[in-house]
Amino acid sequence: MQETFEKQLRDLVGEITDKHSRFRYCTSKESCALPNRNTIISIINDFRVLLFPDYFGKQNLDNTSMQYYMGNVMLDIHDKLYGQLVCALKHQSLKTNGSPEDIEKQAARICCEFFSKVPAVMEILETDVQAAFDGDPAAGDKDEIIFSYPGVFALFVYRLAHELYLMKVPLIPRIMTEYAHSRTGIDINPGATIGKYFFMDHGTGIVIGETSVIGDYVTIYQGVTIGALSTRGGQQLRGSKRHPTIEDNVVIYSGASILGGETVIGRGVVIGSNVFITKSVPPGTRVSLKNQELLFQDRKTQEFKSEF
Amino acid sequence: MQETFEKQLRDLVGEITDKHSRFRYCTSKESCALPNRNTIISIINDFRVLLFPDYFGKQNLDNTSMQYYMGNVMLDIHDKLYGQLVCALKHQSLKTNGSPEDIEKQAARICCEFFSKVPAVMEILETDVQAAFDGDPAAGDKDEIIFSYPGVFALFVYRLAHELYLMKVPLIPRIMTEYAHSRTGIDINPGATIGKYFFMDHGTGIVIGETSVIGDYVTIYQGVTIGALSTRGGQQLRGSKRHPTIEDNVVIYSGASILGGETVIGRGVVIGSNVFITKSVPPGTRVSLKNQELLFQDRKTQEFKSEF
Amino acid sequence: MQETFEKQLRDLVGEITDKHSRFRYCTSKESCALPNRNTIISIINDFRVLLFPDYFGKQNLDNTSMQYYMGNVMLDIHDKLYGQLVCALKHQSLKTNGSPEDIEKQAARICCEFFSKVPAVMEILETDVQAAFDGDPAAGDKDEIIFSYPGVFALFVYRLAHELYLMKVPLIPRIMTEYAHSRTGIDINPGATIGKYFFMDHGTGIVIGETSVIGDYVTIYQGVTIGALSTRGGQQLRGSKRHPTIEDNVVIYSGASILGGETVIGRGVVIGSNVFITKSVPPGTRVSLKNQELLFQDRKTQEFKSEF
Repeated sequence: MQETFEKQLRDLVGEITDKHSRFRYCTSKESCALPNRNTIISIINDFRVLLFPDYFGKQNLDNTSMQYYMGNVMLDIHDKLYGQLVCALKHQSLKTNGSPEDIEKQAARICCEFFSKVPAVMEILETDVQAAFDGDPAAGDKDEIIFSYPGVFALFVYRLAHELYLMKVPLIPRIMTEYAHSRTGIDINPGATIGKYFFMDHGTGIVIGETSVIGDYVTIYQGVTIGALSTRGGQQLRGSKRHPTIEDNVVIYSGASILGGETVIGRGVVIGSNVFITKSVPPGTRVSLKNQELLFQDRKTQEFKSEF
Repeated sequence: MQETFEKQLRDLVGEITDKHSRFRYCTSKESCALPNRNTIISIINDFRVLLFPDYFGKQNLDNTSMQYYMGNVMLDIHDKLYGQLVCALKHQSLKTNGSPEDIEKQAARICCEFFSKVPAVMEILETDVQAAFDGDPAAGDKDEIIFSYPGVFALFVYRLAHELYLMKVPLIPRIMTEYAHSRTGIDINPGATIGKYFFMDHGTGIVIGETSVIGDYVTIYQGVTIGALSTRGGQQLRGSKRHPTIEDNVVIYSGASILGGETVIGRGVVIGSNVFITKSVPPGTRVSLKNQELLFQDRKTQEFKSEF
Repeated sequence: MQETFEKQLRDLVGEITDKHSRFRYCTSKESCALPNRNTIISIINDFRVLLFPDYFGKQNLDNTSMQYYMGNVMLDIHDKLYGQLVCALKHQSLKTNGSPEDIEKQAARICCEFFSKVPAVMEILETDVQAAFDGDPAAGDKDEIIFSYPGVFALFVYRLAHELYLMKVPLIPRIMTEYAHSRTGIDINPGATIGKYFFMDHGTGIVIGETSVIGDYVTIYQGVTIGALSTRGGQQLRGSKRHPTIEDNVVIYSGASILGGETVIGRGVVIGSNVFITKSVPPGTRVSLKNQELLFQDRKTQEFKSEF
């Protein structure tokens, strides 16, 4: 029995390792080290400390200690991010038969440029927190929002990932936003363009596609899709604008779907719950479902009633 | 290059720490220690052991060992909760310019009162497990429900957080329920009032607002919103009843939205999938969508068919 | 004060341990060790390394080292799974007053049979990755899909759990799929039958019930329910086919609900967003909502417009 088991196990290990090539999409002969998802998640968590130390870092530090602490956190992030960038770029370079020589320089340059964007990301996140406070009567204060609002967490991750996406970093931006998706139910593709003062209430089920463009002061609720009309074209559609443009000051209530790359939702539009839109809407319009026709039936007598 | 990098980093650390004040909403001059999210999550996990040791704690303990084990777990919870309460109360006191003197006494009193509620929370959770078993033919047994049902996890966290909310504890209750939201997709505000035998099947996308009142023996399905009609009033609406009242024995099927603080869903009402309700419904009524008008088209001939 | 507190704590520990029996659904006198959720989650994570070592395991191993590494990972999985199976089977045996004698043999047999299915699971997962790549223009490459797509993660867990479900293993399969539900918002019951090349885009809010049967080359979007018509029969419905059959090459767009055990969605059918279906649809049909009647109102003048 024991011997049979060992033999089975040995055979199985062989069979499984043979099958690994099925998931090895890098066709280069050279070894192709991939980024590490856990390291990328730890970079996000470190950024949370770097940007919001009062909330997620060590507390009660004086100004000098804070500078040292922040310096350490930033060095940690730098080292991890640099390593992941090298993996991601080497991986891409092997896939495209590009030259792997300059990868370390390229990674250093991206790191440098990315860090220089961090202060601007903090400024825009401040407007997102303000938008959540202004928009939600259930918010006790802004501290509660930073600590616990899923929409702010998803935006924090998206806004960092988007900077990497703009620098054409492969793999890492999407791993970041999918981690936020996993924790919040909010699926923002790192390619989307999103203005300031953006508020997502509750958030679960929100989808914002890769080529969406969203203006300033926009509010959306749970279950809203900013999506593509059809993806039946598959990879042939890659790169084309497949998702809508939402102009400034738009509100989109829960469960509404706005689809299509040519759809423009004009400035100040309000879209009601569960509305399904595939055409543009001019500025200043309120769009709502004509009242649903509902049936009201008495559960005892089975009689239908029209109104009450 | 190396030197440039170090200079850039130093400058950036300075720039980022300067920007931290943007997220420091406590205006007091005194240092304002905030609660720690990870500690609050560990309190929830410890409570899971305390309430369900057969499922999430050490197994095969005899009665005496169990008493010691439970005693230890409870002391751990107590110490952590007390510490977090002191932070949360001090933080609030500084914001409101209240007197910080009695905070430790207040934290001790809240701890004491909160713990005294735990047996009652266990009793009501037992009814929630029973409701899940009675309502779901896919449930193999109640053990499966405690181990794996997201609705029961969300209720376990909500019912504890709600007790803290009732004692006006700031920050901590919402951090607790948003942790459950993150793990289950179920967003229950700790302020909601929810009766016994409550069952949420599947759960993803459920939203239950702060001032909702839900009776006993209520069942709701995935994607149901018990929400506010409009939150455009923002912080001015804070404290007013903005969410519906759901009476006993109501069933609400998937994707339905019930909105508004004056909306009362009467005893024994059944609300169908995707129904959108902003007015009260009298007891004993079944509400459903009039059949959707669907188009059926043959994909080859492009012909439309009315029925088949 | 201190003494009172200690007395309160001692009393409370007693009261809570008395109440533990409320959640002890195993009526046998013998101790009834339950499986451990954390161990089951670690089995899933180990399987992720075993199946996708380039992505989630140690990198840059040569062929021989890879064989050793895989052998170790597999032995770890085996030991943990065997232990969990013994718990789950003993627990079930005590509940049904079955004989607990052969449990270790039974666990060993299940382990053995389960491992023999792993290569076939890898083959079908390869088709799922291909389906995601073909169906999503936002996918940069297949590596991105394995790293980050929630649908692929949910399928990976479901396909393993389903094999255990088929061998009638209690508790463990559902704990596995609910873990995936928690991480992805995708709720697939381990009892469902799902063919190859299955793609779930975005995924949040998808529900696939226990007795669903889904063919090959099927695509579904976020918020789709493949569910039961009514579960008011509760436990009496257990074992009956309560969920639909979806034939090959079907596409179901976001938010659609397909309900009922006798509902058959024929080969090549396309179901539009938000469609609610409780009857069968013949092959090759496109089903869509008749255009929603929308109201367009100018927010300034309050005038209604029919079109623009």
